Amino acid sequence: MNHAIILISCPDHRGITAAVTGFVYAHNGNIIHADQHIDNQSNTFFMRIEWALEGFDIPESEIKSAFAPIAERFNMVWNLYFDRGKKNIAVFVSRPLHCLQDILLRHGQGEISGTLRLIISNHEDARPLAERAGIPFYFLPITSENKADQETQELKLLADADINLIVLARYHQILSQNFVEKYPNRIINIHHSFLPAFQGRNPYEQAFRQGVKIIGATSHFVVEELDAGPIIEQDTVRVSHRDTIADFKRKGRDLEKTVLSRSLRWALENKILSYENKTVIFD
Amino acid sequence: MNHAIILISCPDHRGITAAVTGFVYAHNGNIIHADQHIDNQSNTFFMRIEWALEGFDIPESEIKSAFAPIAERFNMVWNLYFDRGKKNIAVFVSRPLHCLQDILLRHGQGEISGTLRLIISNHEDARPLAERAGIPFYFLPITSENKADQETQELKLLADADINLIVLARYHQILSQNFVEKYPNRIINIHHSFLPAFQGRNPYEQAFRQGVKIIGATSHFVVEELDAGPIIEQDTVRVSHRDTIADFKRKGRDLEKTVLSRSLRWALENKILSYENKTVIFD
Amino acid sequence: MNHAIILISCPDHRGITAAVTGFVYAHNGNIIHADQHIDNQSNTFFMRIEWALEGFDIPESEIKSAFAPIAERFNMVWNLYFDRGKKNIAVFVSRPLHCLQDILLRHGQGEISGTLRLIISNHEDARPLAERAGIPFYFLPITSENKADQETQELKLLADADINLIVLARYHQILSQNFVEKYPNRIINIHHSFLPAFQGRNPYEQAFRQGVKIIGATSHFVVEELDAGPIIEQDTVRVSHRDTIADFKRKGRDLEKTVLSRSLRWALENKILSYENKTVIFD
Amino acid sequence: MNHAIILISCPDHRGITAAVTGFVYAHNGNIIHADQHIDNQSNTFFMRIEWALEGFDIPESEIKSAFAPIAERFNMVWNLYFDRGKKNIAVFVSRPLHCLQDILLRHGQGEISGTLRLIISNHEDARPLAERAGIPFYFLPITSENKADQETQELKLLADADINLIVLARYHQILSQNFVEKYPNRIINIHHSFLPAFQGRNPYEQAFRQGVKIIGATSHFVVEELDAGPIIEQDTVRVSHRDTIADFKRKGRDLEKTVLSRSLRWALENKILSYENKTVIFD
Repeated sequence: MNHAIILISCPDHRGITAAVTGFVYAHNGNIIHADQHIDNQSNTFFMRIEWALEGFDIPESEIKSAFAPIAERFNMVWNLYFDRGKKNIAVFVSRPLHCLQDILLRHGQGEISGTLRLIISNHEDARPLAERAGIPFYFLPITSENKADQETQELKLLADADINLIVLARYHQILSQNFVEKYPNRIINIHHSFLPAFQGRNPYEQAFRQGVKIIGATSHFVVEELDAGPIIEQDTVRVSHRDTIADFKRKGRDLEKTVLSRSLRWALENKILSYENKTVIFD
Repeated sequence: MNHAIILISCPDHRGITAAVTGFVYAHNGNIIHADQHIDNQSNTFFMRIEWALEGFDIPESEIKSAFAPIAERFNMVWNLYFDRGKKNIAVFVSRPLHCLQDILLRHGQGEISGTLRLIISNHEDARPLAERAGIPFYFLPITSENKADQETQELKLLADADINLIVLARYHQILSQNFVEKYPNRIINIHHSFLPAFQGRNPYEQAFRQGVKIIGATSHFVVEELDAGPIIEQDTVRVSHRDTIADFKRKGRDLEKTVLSRSLRWALENKILSYENKTVIFD
Repeated sequence: MNHAIILISCPDHRGITAAVTGFVYAHNGNIIHADQHIDNQSNTFFMRIEWALEGFDIPESEIKSAFAPIAERFNMVWNLYFDRGKKNIAVFVSRPLHCLQDILLRHGQGEISGTLRLIISNHEDARPLAERAGIPFYFLPITSENKADQETQELKLLADADINLIVLARYHQILSQNFVEKYPNRIINIHHSFLPAFQGRNPYEQAFRQGVKIIGATSHFVVEELDAGPIIEQDTVRVSHRDTIADFKRKGRDLEKTVLSRSLRWALENKILSYENKTVIFD
Repeated sequence: MNHAIILISCPDHRGITAAVTGFVYAHNGNIIHADQHIDNQSNTFFMRIEWALEGFDIPESEIKSAFAPIAERFNMVWNLYFDRGKKNIAVFVSRPLHCLQDILLRHGQGEISGTLRLIISNHEDARPLAERAGIPFYFLPITSENKADQETQELKLLADADINLIVLARYHQILSQNFVEKYPNRIINIHHSFLPAFQGRNPYEQAFRQGVKIIGATSHFVVEELDAGPIIEQDTVRVSHRDTIADFKRKGRDLEKTVLSRSLRWALENKILSYENKTVIFD
């Protein structure tokens, strides 16, 4: 049974909720979820509404135009989505494979509803995993000389596969501004620290030197500035003086996997709204 | 600025959200929060809607009757509340005073919005705290002989002070069925274990003997059966073989305080909906 | 570089630590870890000492007899172990495969130091995983009629493979008293609840009906009584009214994996001491 | 019953543990706790040993000189302490009083074993709390002009009261280098962020603007550089887009209290060893 989902942000006004829910009801839709949030600082209204299309009297192809007048009336920035399962996912990965393995396992267990269309890496390490899972694998090594060319190649692969969501599952190359701008709020990165602490390279080593008692992992949408995009999810785990850097990495791998997988699930279910440099998670 | 809040549960149908939000909008109310939840197992719809009354064109005293037709149409069990600050609270406490101290501190810091009207205890220990805070204190010791009489006395005190919410802040007497039935979903107890494990007496000692690696605290609405009412909130903390029973109690006190204070805040803000033997928390 | 490890429990007396560390030093051993714990309730002393054998002047084969007089003097229950890597592991699994997959992944990443010698299941589901990993797989379905025979077969497989540690990675058969007694404190089970709450079958369904706000997982040594052996590790995760039983299971899988893998690592590193119905974890 | 505690750090060598525990045993001491840790990166050995003095055949006043030869042999940096209860504590506080209130409550409940000798503040707000608790209160407002003079006054008060431990319980003045150097590893500060993120002023506001999903609190020893001393303890709590800055502060207060109180307890029990810019916590 197909569902429709609309994500909305707009200046707060009286009547938005009534108008949106009234629209669904007037056309015989059954609301499954309706969440809203008002950011009082910026006076911004956010909403996620999901309804069952069974019995809904507007055809899927015409919902967008039918809803447009309401959106205009309230100056909405909005998107309409159908069904959870339709997103096409590309995974970028470098040498640490635990996040990719975790995504593959969860995909196999039905936790992740999208379609894994391709895996891109600047190393060959992930190839056997990709082949065993039957997912096309592209080895595109990056040097300072070939970076622009390889990105052109990557963008073509993404376009050809109709990719909606890119997951950087420990991909250790910085994407160019040009690349990032093509997929706004569609590229999720996992960073192995509790951002904004320990940006950049070797965050576990940084954390170890600092003598912190807790380490973290952070998923965020990718923007041009490194490790600075809107945070989607974070989690932490306790460490002690007994933990070596190897222990930090071992504990951190578990964090990275869970933080990335939660973000991926929310993205696939259209539960993330990004605004300014933050996210609203309708979970 | 006053707010109105309606808490609703009813069988799920198309159009409930539209009807409720449409009602608020039609009378020029500004929705501040609107949360809903559908329990698929029982096909039950739950909703909490909060709107600002500034500009609302129905007087407070007539909102109840104005909303009644919508409630009837959908077979709603519902309640209308005004403003966060108006609840009158009674605290019952025995000898451990940390939960009461915590409530008094949070009240002093403005975290807890109700009015502490009276403190009842079967011991004298809490009297100095009550007097310093300027809250009437009643010493009502309980024996098997006088229990019925003392409860009669307590019920009179509660009625005279127009109490809406009773907090058992480590009160170690069992309330009678008669008492409990007078305040359905209005008596919050803190139990010092992760329920349903370790019901009844000495839960920390039980947990210690069991050798658990994590202890917990649970707040719940009081029903006639001991430690069996709908759970409102729980939290846990790690223990190890190095922790003695005294350490369990020390760590547990912090848990009890935070778990109870969260529940109290939710109750005062009308964010808890109880159904079957569970709660929905609209936070 | 090989290490020796001694785990000790005995009645507390003056001089135990001095005697044990003095023994290692007198024979030119370099202590890597020395942890001790005194249980004041039972006046029991526990110790784990690990030292590097490089330069130690007693051959490995004679350490046991050399230490025996100290052990006798203090009435120690004790065990000597060498090296982390030598334990032979058997995994028992039924149909949910996530714990087995997790063990295989961690083994591949070097997190788990033992040797996976064989996988036994009462279903065929795990066979492809076992074969891909190159680990012998035995399909031994259990009925009330054949249970004794199948256990005989299992015990023979375990003996032939010189198994030191058995991991029940969601194995849904109850082992007989005879079986359990052959591997005291050597069989680790993962139970998908926060024990002692929700013992037995369908703990997530039990937790869901109870309306708990936190779910857990527990690893323990197997004793004859179901889900009642000494607890090794527990962990918890928050749930809300929005979580379905499927969400409980999804969140729970992550808990089960981390709780079981921690226990397995501790067991392989000889960090667990079991006494009465509890454990001391020297981590 | 009095205990002696020695905290040790020195280059790692064979025989340290045997020498230290042998010393205690040779003089008929009963070891209560013995913990050690080796930092492999710097090859440094750390130890905390605590033994009961009942029956110990060296008088308290001579233990220091009796142990000195062992300390010299291994190039130890070391300290000898007696009994938990003897430390004299000074609390510095500015306007937010929750940490001071928490310390007073825990002190009243016997959780904190030292003696609260004096409270110093640059505001008058804390005076009623201090007076009610019967603790001398000194109002020493700080301006850029009088800072040096006021610190001279503070140092005199601390010296006169024989203070061993200074707790900055949300004290919003920066101590001078001269002041800090007089109490190395004896001044504990609570910072209301997950350091090293959000140093300096208004960390909750910084965290809110950053859109983090988890906030934290950090206790550390004070060094000259602001918010940069060795971290003693940290803890974190989840926030969401629904939380306002006021919610961050409310949740943060609970974190600050627990993090600071744990650190204070460890300091009073001589469980913290500071080295380089880190701490070892023997808990």
